[in-house]
Order: sequence, then structure tokens, then C-alpha cells
Amino acid sequence: MRIFVDAMGGDNAPQAPVEGAVEALRRYPEIEVTLAGVIPEIEKYLTNCDDVRSRITLLDAPEVITNEESPVMGVRRKTKSATVIGMLKLRDKEVDGFVSAGSTGAVLAGGMFRLGRIPGIERPALAPLMPNGKAHFLLIDCGANVDCKPEYLVQFGVMGDAYMRGVVGMENPRVGLINIGAEAEKGNALVKNTYPLMESAPYNFVGNVEARDITNDVADVLVADGFSGNLILKFMEGMAGTLMGIIKREMMADLRGKIAGLIAKPAFRRVKKLMDYTEVGGAPLLGVQGAVVKAHGSSNAHAFSCAIGQVIKMIDGKVVETIEKGVAALIPTEDA
Amino acid sequence: MRIFVDAMGGDNAPQAPVEGAVEALRRYPEIEVTLAGVIPEIEKYLTNCDDVRSRITLLDAPEVITNEESPVMGVRRKTKSATVIGMLKLRDKEVDGFVSAGSTGAVLAGGMFRLGRIPGIERPALAPLMPNGKAHFLLIDCGANVDCKPEYLVQFGVMGDAYMRGVVGMENPRVGLINIGAEAEKGNALVKNTYPLMESAPYNFVGNVEARDITNDVADVLVADGFSGNLILKFMEGMAGTLMGIIKREMMADLRGKIAGLIAKPAFRRVKKLMDYTEVGGAPLLGVQGAVVKAHGSSNAHAFSCAIGQVIKMIDGKVVETIEKGVAALIPTEDA
Repeated sequence: MRIFVDAMGGDNAPQAPVEGAVEALRRYPEIEVTLAGVIPEIEKYLTNCDDVRSRITLLDAPEVITNEESPVMGVRRKTKSATVIGMLKLRDKEVDGFVSAGSTGAVLAGGMFRLGRIPGIERPALAPLMPNGKAHFLLIDCGANVDCKPEYLVQFGVMGDAYMRGVVGMENPRVGLINIGAEAEKGNALVKNTYPLMESAPYNFVGNVEARDITNDVADVLVADGFSGNLILKFMEGMAGTLMGIIKREMMADLRGKIAGLIAKPAFRRVKKLMDYTEVGGAPLLGVQGAVVKAHGSSNAHAFSCAIGQVIKMIDGKVVETIEKGVAALIPTEDA
Repeated sequence: MRIFVDAMGGDNAPQAPVEGAVEALRRYPEIEVTLAGVIPEIEKYLTNCDDVRSRITLLDAPEVITNEESPVMGVRRKTKSATVIGMLKLRDKEVDGFVSAGSTGAVLAGGMFRLGRIPGIERPALAPLMPNGKAHFLLIDCGANVDCKPEYLVQFGVMGDAYMRGVVGMENPRVGLINIGAEAEKGNALVKNTYPLMESAPYNFVGNVEARDITNDVADVLVADGFSGNLILKFMEGMAGTLMGIIKREMMADLRGKIAGLIAKPAFRRVKKLMDYTEVGGAPLLGVQGAVVKAHGSSNAHAFSCAIGQVIKMIDGKVVETIEKGVAALIPTEDA
């Protein structure tokens, strides 16, 4: 199995991607890794890895698409960037999976225009696994498509279902639609029109999920338009930080609380780890013709190796093939 | 000052509204209260209040619009409900303020069709004050308008600005637009089209606010369409509950944590109180021609008295008049 790694993407590049790749090579003996980027920069961090060095290929990719430029223009112009080179190699089956912690927009644009969509898929979507303290749920879409049509959301359900089956190993994932009420007639025009379509979709649709139940383990796949999904993703991060900050402040306000805080440190450390969504790796880009994972921009080496582990599971779990079949089952046979 | 109270609305009616009204009458010597509902039911809880009894008027309103029926039909048909009677009395200046913990939809419909909108206002909005641990921010709209146009959102800014000036006493409230990115060109079609209109609106527009910053005290008024606003309101509730549950579970997992939990009890109690958004009363319905507060359905007597306190502040702070002026300043003088 050959994994393509963008060595120049993310806040801690190239160190984190390179060291993360080495960690992954040790963990997964079945893989080979292509590290793409500025070769002398990559080589700096390839010390002490003689045990896996023979499974690493270096590939010159001197250009980087930054967060500041237009992703579509970046993908069009920077043909020597890891993003573009990797997507083309994935398309041509020269590699089996792609991981980058670089510009999300560039990964999206590269996936759309260089790798290509799965036939029948209208819009690929980003879908991170989010913690709820007990298990994880897949939030799809979390930002790739800010303006959606009901058809997109129905397909997000197909993609999420395929991911939870293939990667998490679930038999019959519960697919819910994020809404402001539980009843079928609730919501804005988008979700109201989506609901009946989901009812007849080929997955286990469990109905609307109110925002207050998002973290209550009532569904395994939570479908939303990319604007709402991104609000939830980011608000979860912000709220957790705010609440932990308030707890800390209130505990530090008196001696009693300070002592309690000291004793409770291991418990708080467990809570933090439980709610840390970077632990699972990154967000898969679903709906494109290959296994693509967008790692968190702030990924360290370990998070990066997790993202590589995730793309391996996507390949092993045949997520792309399952989506292909699912979307084919979804399309009304107009030709018939 | 005369406050109209729907004595039959909410999970704990008529006890909570009646006892809450009595509490408010003791706290605010300047008010008189009309309690509307099934009079014998109300009278059951009017014991031990001889000190304020002379300032209470009972009004027969035998019908109740429930959460299960269509609010618009309910308002049309149930002319003997407290909601309809109260809104008409407010319109006719027989009372100065209105409080109900009943069906949100009925309060909205009653406000729109019986009380009426402020001239120039396209859509009234529900706007609860939310805690961030340090201060409160006004979230507008949180569910009255699930499908919005840019013009509505711009007006929500006017309403929120008026509320924070009149009720909270702020001089120059910061008005932010909830979005998935900080840059002006980010977001879905709705917010992208709203941004330039807000830039020229007669309030202190501070730009886009990312969801991760919602609780970081970067704006006093946070504007969103009612779908997104409701997601945030409910998700905040759900997330706080989930996170506190996880903390509790992890602390109870070993003796060390249990001891810490015991010692930290007062600190946790303070945190809970800080994050309890029912403490501030309820959500004002802004944009209608009178002071209307929708109290939380689960309000107890104290929460109800807070909601009455809130409607008093709206009257004193001339919120309706300020919105009227604000929206007039907003409308392009097409006649000119």
C-alpha cells in the first residue's frame, strides 16, 4: 500500500509530516510512503530512521499552495505543489492514499479538479469524526459546501454511512439530519426538503437530530450543510475551551478549589483527551475517487501518523467503492 | 407600569407564573400585574400575598394555545387565550409589557398578527442573552426566522443594538455577524450578502465572528439567521451538559477524583450558575410594537420574576422606541 504525504503542509511542516510518516511506517509494515516537498528540507528530519528508510520515496514538489491564496487558482497554477502532484498520482493509481495538513481549500479543489468526483456524486464533503465522550460521530459536511441543495445532503448520508462501515466497522450506522426540532416538518427550507428524500435513501435514517442532542450519541453520522456543520465543529471547540477555562478560573478562585484542582488533575487530563478530536487523525474528504485525508493544520508528528492510519483504514475498508455503490443505489433510474 | 402575565403558559403553570408575579410585585413597587388564565386555578396560588394583592388584576382567559398545535391557527381561533388577549391589550396600550412561558410559536404569531411589527421591521426576532462566563451576549435570531434574507439580518443588528443600550446599559454595543471565517468574503450566500449591508448600518459593526469565538467576548450582539442561531443556542446547552457529565464521570472513576469532586463542589456550583442562561429571564421578542418577553418553558417562579424584571427594563430602556428610530435610519429614503 502506497501513501502519498504532503511534507510541506501544516503549521509544523516539514518536521511533523516527516516524523509522522516515519512513525506510521513503523506502525504499519504494509505501507510505503512518498514524501513530497522540498527535498533538502525533508531530509533534515530523516535522521534515525534507517529501519524504514527503504520504504520512503522522496519526490520534489517545490511549490506550496498557501491558506492566503485562492485554492482554485492555486491548484490551477501551482502544478509543482504536493497537492496537485499527489492528487494526480492518486487518480493514476500510482499511490493508494493521500494525506495533507495544508490548505483545506487546496485539498478540496485538488480533489474536485485533479482527482475527480465519484460518478454520481454532486459535491465531495469534509467529514471529521467528533467525540461525544462515549463514542465518535461523523459530522458531514463541515465546510466544503457552504450552500447546499437537498440532493447534496442525501448523498452526504451515503458517504457517511460508507465511512462508518468501512473505517469504524459499524454494521448499520444511524444517519441523522441536524435540525432545530425533532419533527419532520421542522427546520429551514433546506432540511425540510431533505427529510423526505432521506427517508427513502438506502441507509438507516433515524430522522432529525436537535442540536442539544448532537453529543448525546443518538446518531453515528450527522448530516448538515457545510455552513451549519462548520459552525458546530468550531463552536464545539470554542465552547469546550470556554467551559474548561471557567472551571479552571472558578477552581483557582479559592484555596479549596485549588486543592481540588490539584487532586483532580488526572481526571481532567482524561477529559481533555476524550474531547480531543485531533486524536482520530483528520477529516476525510469523501466523494472523490480516492482515499484522501485532510489532517488538522496544527497536527504534530503523532496526529499526522494517526491521519496516515486513517487513510489506511479508508483503503482497507473500501470506502470509495462503497460510496460508489451507495450513490448508484440512490440515483433514480431515469434511463429505465 | 402594568405587566400582563400569561398565567397558563410553561411547564410549571399556573404555579410558577403566579408565584413569580408575586415575587416581582414585591421586588418592583412601581408595577401592577394582570394575571390571565383560568381564575380558580390562579387563585389557588394567591395565598400569602396580601401585601401585593391589591396590585393584581385577574383576567379570565380559559383557552390555551399548546405546543402541539399550529401557532398561527391557534392565535386565529383561540381568541380567549392569554396570548391573544395580552397582545391585544399591549397593542391598545392597556398594558405596558407582556410575559409568557407558553408556546414560542404562539408568542411569535401573536406578536406578528395581533400586536404588530414596528413600521419598517421585516421580521421580529427572538434574542436571548447568553452567558460566556465573563459577560453576556445577545444572540439574535434564535429561531423565529429559519429562512432569512440579508435585510432581516441587518435589522437584527438594529434590534440587538437597541436592546443592549436600553436594557443592559451599553454605550456602543459591538455587533458581530456569525460566520465560518473572519474575512468579509467568507460564508454562505446569506452572510456574504449581509456583510456589506452591515458595514453601512447605523451601529458598531465589528465584522464576522467565527463560531469558535462566540463565547470569547468579541461582540455584544451576535447576529445569525434563526436556523443557525437556534443550532448554537441548543448546542451550547447540549455541549455544556455533555462536558459536565464527562467531567463528573471521570472524577467519579477513582477515589482521588471523588475526593476532588467533593472539595470542588462550591466551584462547580458557581460554574453552573455562570452558564445558566435561564438566570437572565427569557428571550425578548424584538421588532414588535411592545415589550414582549418569552420566558423559558421550564421557568420556575424565580425565573419568571426575572423575566418580568426584564420586560420592565425593556419598557424603562425604551427599546421599542430605539428600534423604531434605528430602523428609520436604516431605510434608504426612497421617497427623497
